[in-house]
Amino acid sequence: MNSKKLIIDMFSEIARVHGLSKSVGAIYGLLFYYERPMSLDEIVEELKISKGNASMSLKKLEELGFVKRTWIEGERKNFYQISESFSSIKDIARRKHEIIKSYYEKLKEENLDEKKLEKIRKMLILSEKILKVLEELD
Amino acid sequence: MNSKKLIIDMFSEIARVHGLSKSVGAIYGLLFYYERPMSLDEIVEELKISKGNASMSLKKLEELGFVKRTWIEGERKNFYQISESFSSIKDIARRKHEIIKSYYEKLKEENLDEKKLEKIRKMLILSEKILKVLEELD
Repeated sequence: MNSKKLIIDMFSEIARVHGLSKSVGAIYGLLFYYERPMSLDEIVEELKISKGNASMSLKKLEELGFVKRTWIEGERKNFYQISESFSSIKDIARRKHEIIKSYYEKLKEENLDEKKLEKIRKMLILSEKILKVLEELD
Repeated sequence: MNSKKLIIDMFSEIARVHGLSKSVGAIYGLLFYYERPMSLDEIVEELKISKGNASMSLKKLEELGFVKRTWIEGERKNFYQISESFSSIKDIARRKHEIIKSYYEKLKEENLDEKKLEKIRKMLILSEKILKVLEELD
């Protein structure tokens, strides 16, 4: 077992736990391991996955903010690299907190029944706490 | 704007932020709103989505542990309802923490370079803190 395989497997398992495909995690792991921008062809070659699967997974990783596209001088292809550690997780937690906060206010005005409103208030508190943990992280 | 629509929209937006489909969130919101088991047909009828999309989304929600199947006496159809608040989120956090912990130990033995190991150690600390926040939640 080598480090590269272990890192790819770890992120694949993490992706599955979140309902994302194994390839989404495997690509993230590969980019994490090499610490440099990689092209679609290199990724396909390393992971032995189809180009279509790799493309779709990279699109998902870009949407989530975990991977960004970069251009390399003199190269015509797109290259991909991972975003700064935890910046994307913080960003997701921030967006989630904003969504819950804004809907909680609207639902209070709509006189949603107390029991459901209380559940959403707990979601709001949880999202605040998680955001705080993430923001304390250096 | 009514409460039902607001709740469905809120969970749809939360799903999108996590890289899941809008329908995954909409179905969760619908089941959260009605607080009772619903059949696939009812869900399709309420949300005006295709049966294929609804099936796929329910499968994803079951995999994630957010929705469980129930049987109703005298009914031949499957019914779906949401899991107890936060139990599925706690379960995901627990599984994630176990994955990171086990790979971190393996990667230490493999003599992964210090910089990468330090990043994974930070992921481990983060997952522990998030798990703690979740476990403190009543």
